[in-house]
Amino acid sequence: MTFRRFQSSCQIAVVVLLLALLIPPLTAASSGKCRLVRSLRDEIASYRPVVERVLSYVQDKKGYKGRTWAALSEFTDMFGSRLASTSNLENSIDYMMNSLRAENLDNVHAERVMFTGWQRRKENAALVKPRYKNLAMLGLGGSVSTAPEGIRAEVVVVTSFDDLSNKSSQVSGKIVVYNQPYVSYSETVVYRSMGASEASKYGAVATLIRSITPFSLNTPHAGHQSYSDGVKKIPTACITVEDAELLNRMYNRGTKLEIFLKMDSKFFTNATSRNTVAEIKGTTDPDKIVLVSGHLDSWDVGQGAMDDGGRCVYKLELVSSCLLWTAEEEGYIGAYAYLKGHKSELEKFNLVIESDEGTFQPYGIEFHGSETSACIMVEVAKLFDSINATTMQSSKENVGSDIEVFENINIPGLSLLNRNEKYFWYHHTEADTMAVEDPDSLDLNTAMFAVISYIIADLSVELPKS
Amino acid sequence: MTFRRFQSSCQIAVVVLLLALLIPPLTAASSGKCRLVRSLRDEIASYRPVVERVLSYVQDKKGYKGRTWAALSEFTDMFGSRLASTSNLENSIDYMMNSLRAENLDNVHAERVMFTGWQRRKENAALVKPRYKNLAMLGLGGSVSTAPEGIRAEVVVVTSFDDLSNKSSQVSGKIVVYNQPYVSYSETVVYRSMGASEASKYGAVATLIRSITPFSLNTPHAGHQSYSDGVKKIPTACITVEDAELLNRMYNRGTKLEIFLKMDSKFFTNATSRNTVAEIKGTTDPDKIVLVSGHLDSWDVGQGAMDDGGRCVYKLELVSSCLLWTAEEEGYIGAYAYLKGHKSELEKFNLVIESDEGTFQPYGIEFHGSETSACIMVEVAKLFDSINATTMQSSKENVGSDIEVFENINIPGLSLLNRNEKYFWYHHTEADTMAVEDPDSLDLNTAMFAVISYIIADLSVELPKS
Repeated sequence: MTFRRFQSSCQIAVVVLLLALLIPPLTAASSGKCRLVRSLRDEIASYRPVVERVLSYVQDKKGYKGRTWAALSEFTDMFGSRLASTSNLENSIDYMMNSLRAENLDNVHAERVMFTGWQRRKENAALVKPRYKNLAMLGLGGSVSTAPEGIRAEVVVVTSFDDLSNKSSQVSGKIVVYNQPYVSYSETVVYRSMGASEASKYGAVATLIRSITPFSLNTPHAGHQSYSDGVKKIPTACITVEDAELLNRMYNRGTKLEIFLKMDSKFFTNATSRNTVAEIKGTTDPDKIVLVSGHLDSWDVGQGAMDDGGRCVYKLELVSSCLLWTAEEEGYIGAYAYLKGHKSELEKFNLVIESDEGTFQPYGIEFHGSETSACIMVEVAKLFDSINATTMQSSKENVGSDIEVFENINIPGLSLLNRNEKYFWYHHTEADTMAVEDPDSLDLNTAMFAVISYIIADLSVELPKS
Repeated sequence: MTFRRFQSSCQIAVVVLLLALLIPPLTAASSGKCRLVRSLRDEIASYRPVVERVLSYVQDKKGYKGRTWAALSEFTDMFGSRLASTSNLENSIDYMMNSLRAENLDNVHAERVMFTGWQRRKENAALVKPRYKNLAMLGLGGSVSTAPEGIRAEVVVVTSFDDLSNKSSQVSGKIVVYNQPYVSYSETVVYRSMGASEASKYGAVATLIRSITPFSLNTPHAGHQSYSDGVKKIPTACITVEDAELLNRMYNRGTKLEIFLKMDSKFFTNATSRNTVAEIKGTTDPDKIVLVSGHLDSWDVGQGAMDDGGRCVYKLELVSSCLLWTAEEEGYIGAYAYLKGHKSELEKFNLVIESDEGTFQPYGIEFHGSETSACIMVEVAKLFDSINATTMQSSKENVGSDIEVFENINIPGLSLLNRNEKYFWYHHTEADTMAVEDPDSLDLNTAMFAVISYIIADLSVELPKS
């Protein structure tokens, strides 16, 4: 996932028939906040046998059990990380296109996306004064390189933007190290995304930023950043929590610190990639769209199993069509391109689904849409009581990452709630591998994605947008 | 800690007066397993005010609170890792000698130790077929180098020594990857310590061993290994859990794997280091010894804060003399040298203390000694009820690591029980840093070490050895 919110996404697009037209009114006087008419509640409840059948199937050793994990490990073991602008991602897109065709989905095709690519080359950082210590690091996406011979400069450590402002007179010509405490991803990631630009304003020559995570085993985290207009672009990388704290302690003791930093990266203007699209055409109202999606690209570390491969390999028969975004990590580039290329069709989208917040044990639905739509989702969530996944959380914020571009234009968005407390331990690191993934949880995610998209597509009413 | 048991150690040696002679009998008929005479139980209980005073002091912001953490961070930040045979360790020994002298301890001196040193130089490993993937690794202590140009060889993955034996005909000329599951440190570490020798018997050219840990963020773990007599010495290193599992999956799919491995290390025959000794001389019976200890050396990764710096900086006034072992990680080299050099004094040792199992929140005592001695320790442990640390675990196995050499000749040994469930997450890795350490827990460890050693030294009876 990118830096925008606590969510990342690999989206499987399902384009499904809605069987009937909207039949108002959907609400009636009743107790509680939700006042759906009884007939609609009964209709949703009538899907219980379908839900039970699918859940049984994915938990049955003779059925689907373990197949999500098997497919995901086969895919990620074959390709590893899949950075946008690399042939590795393009090869993995070809693999997915072939998989989707093998599933006999309709209209399997790719849609071209253009962007400026960025790739890491050799890089290293080390404390060189008062003693030598290698600093594990990952240059941030979009960062410029250092001079070929590297930079050696004195260090100023700050713990916040306010602290930076207070120390602004000391920053010129220095390397600024950010040792900001981790509060939450959405609150703390601003140091990764804006740290370089803020320090550059005061004349810093580079920035090293504490990785955005609540837990570390000396683990550097990658991620995207962009420069503000008008500031000098300076090299920027994430270092580990442990090293940021070490430098902070030494700096606070009055020790003069010097760091050596060498970074080499390459930009690819006019890089191209592809969104991957597949459909299940309906018959009664084939133009109504429920979109299920995930992003196929990842950072260039680990296997991109959790972020977001796990959302790209759901092959359950019930929902076997998908849209796989490209270049999510660089800022929803694939999603924006799709939006631009499909403007005339946006009215047809009834629901966009993705879940870029991990593939851990699901416990419910996170939904962003109108009040009545949310009430429909409450009824849908009730169907998952056998797996303790009945929570329905209505969010005023967008849910999902790429699908944010749809939600911004008032299309309902849905994500899965899952036990993702440790998501940011692994996020954008070498540790985002199959070791994170639990086979049973993956299967339950698959089942919920499949069943929810099916119900919303099959329901006699559309989700009201207001 | 080394590979022998679940324990590591940095030992602070306290040489303290035992105020009185042994007064038999210590036991009397009573209910329960322990039958200490009432007078002895009362005597131990009479130390309660001392215990309370020390515990209050270390938990008082105006007292000692936070000082263990401060001392440990100052020390480890200054020196970082402290591998035996490096000038870094020797400099840190000098620093500690000066610290001990500044505390006005008696007879502060160093005792020379000779051994064969080993140092890591450049090393790397990568999967090169069917695709390129860097493998994070740490060459194992004592490993020979590869040829200067490295080794490229096909891979056989095994999950146990039995599995190796079954595949023995396929191993010649190959790199053997061990993907043994983690059961417990003591059970699983045999793959690190003997994996190279076992595979070499069948003609393997190198071994890569899954790191000995229950949890990983793609984290390689260092450690010692030694070759069996008569086998060809082959290069050996630990790789990460994630990569071992990846290679295992690919291998089981029938994929032909090739790995490139390049390791360069250097042996230093006749390396020297020093055990650091300080004493508090008693007055009534100055020859009776209670030894509190920790090991000052560490692996060459991280800061060696948990293993075992945390046991080397206890500066509480009550117990401010110490013995700091050297070269523990290579197999208790400092402890064996001490034993050899002090043969004539061994009768004087009444108790040896160390705790090389982490510096987390303490909850009691682990003890190895006679039944009556253990009953005395049960009474001592009761004094720590205010910090919920009254557990007294009598062990038939040795406790501690270096002090094992004393326990083997029937000298009672004591270690602290602490909440070290995550000890092996950090053990021998770059993540063994101050980030592991909790200031309050460190202070409680300090207090318990101080008080227990004081009580045993001050008690009117010796711990009976049988």
